[in-house]
Amino acid sequence: MKVVCIGSGNVATHFCVALKAKGADVIQVWSKSDENAAVLARLIGAQPVSDLALIDKTAALYLIAVKDDAIAEISAVLKGISGLVVHTSGATDISVLSGYENYGVFYPLQTFSKSRGIDFNKVPLCLEAGSEQVMKRLKEIAGKLGGPVYEVDSRKRKILHLSAVFACNFVNHMYVLGNVVLNEHRLDFEMLRPLIMETAEKVQADLPVNVQTGPAVRHDEQTELKHLQLLTGAPQLQEIYQTLSNSIKKTH
Amino acid sequence: MKVVCIGSGNVATHFCVALKAKGADVIQVWSKSDENAAVLARLIGAQPVSDLALIDKTAALYLIAVKDDAIAEISAVLKGISGLVVHTSGATDISVLSGYENYGVFYPLQTFSKSRGIDFNKVPLCLEAGSEQVMKRLKEIAGKLGGPVYEVDSRKRKILHLSAVFACNFVNHMYVLGNVVLNEHRLDFEMLRPLIMETAEKVQADLPVNVQTGPAVRHDEQTELKHLQLLTGAPQLQEIYQTLSNSIKKTH
Repeated sequence: MKVVCIGSGNVATHFCVALKAKGADVIQVWSKSDENAAVLARLIGAQPVSDLALIDKTAALYLIAVKDDAIAEISAVLKGISGLVVHTSGATDISVLSGYENYGVFYPLQTFSKSRGIDFNKVPLCLEAGSEQVMKRLKEIAGKLGGPVYEVDSRKRKILHLSAVFACNFVNHMYVLGNVVLNEHRLDFEMLRPLIMETAEKVQADLPVNVQTGPAVRHDEQTELKHLQLLTGAPQLQEIYQTLSNSIKKTH
Repeated sequence: MKVVCIGSGNVATHFCVALKAKGADVIQVWSKSDENAAVLARLIGAQPVSDLALIDKTAALYLIAVKDDAIAEISAVLKGISGLVVHTSGATDISVLSGYENYGVFYPLQTFSKSRGIDFNKVPLCLEAGSEQVMKRLKEIAGKLGGPVYEVDSRKRKILHLSAVFACNFVNHMYVLGNVVLNEHRLDFEMLRPLIMETAEKVQADLPVNVQTGPAVRHDEQTELKHLQLLTGAPQLQEIYQTLSNSIKKTH
């Protein structure tokens, strides 16, 4: 399968590496930056391209993994393609690609970092397609990558993307704030790492609402007051502590 | 080593099981509830006790794992002990036990659930002692349990406890809110589980501030607006979304 990759960020990089490992032939990598196109192209043995007019029109799959607001711009320029054109965005409607003959969405519900390998067995892929025939093809490709596969329409995909902001982006920010508290007192983040793993592992077999712990859920107001006092001098952290403690009490 | 356990909750249960597995002889379990004392005592082959006057005075270790505000009450009643008396509380000063000859703190920086086994290799133990001799004994006991061991004074222990509220309790609440969003649209929490694991694993080798992703950190205000619109009807979630997005922007 000949693949053209439009984009050179984290998602583009990990998809290219995974597709190549499963036998796909990634022939071109486009990026608006010459340099970024070159880096990813070198990594996977493809041709770097920074002019959309030079994109090969005979590939079987065009993977558009760029910033959300660039998808529409690119699809307005990239014409004359009969292969499969998919984007990888959680927040973008499938309709942005409806000018193509064969189009769909290939949304990985996972967080990608350039510095870290990713096991595609652990990447849920959310598929949407402009036709049943395209869905069949997307499922074949997703199946090769090995992770769980879901059919998800644009409306539900946006909800998934929003829930991921809570379960990933905001979670990481809570780690950041925990570390801010430690740093103030020269304590090492390493001490928190086992707790962070166990907190994630606990919800792998249970629902989070069943395993909530801490002062807020047991209405231990004395401890909450002590914590707010420790945060004197950090009004931003105090506000977040109060807002989230109240939210836990409302939920339980 | 003869051990008396004061308390029958999650922490008491997991410590008793772990100490017994390492060869300790847990002879008594006290709880103010007859029933709870009986359940844990049966589990580990100890004698259940619900009257503090009946506590054996000859044990080597008295582990006080009860609610924070009960520690002072218990230590006011439980007298005439020359063995080691320790509490397991993050938020309670060591001085609450200073009436004893040999006293200290044995604070596990981990989240415990009754329904889930725990590997003590992954439980950081934060030790504080009333004397060097007691610290030596605490380190011996902690060493047998196998996890990382830290010397932490009362002031720093309270900071650790606070940071754990962010990195564990608030994190779990973010999982809860992620699931609230999914439930509204009949999407399954299972879809988020791989993302949750990867988010935790990412900070095992890196600092969270280096791996923050999402709309807020990249100042993608269009996506933020769309997310806030999706949360119309859930003003509490909107407020949290806004507060945390602002905090991410201030941090980065």
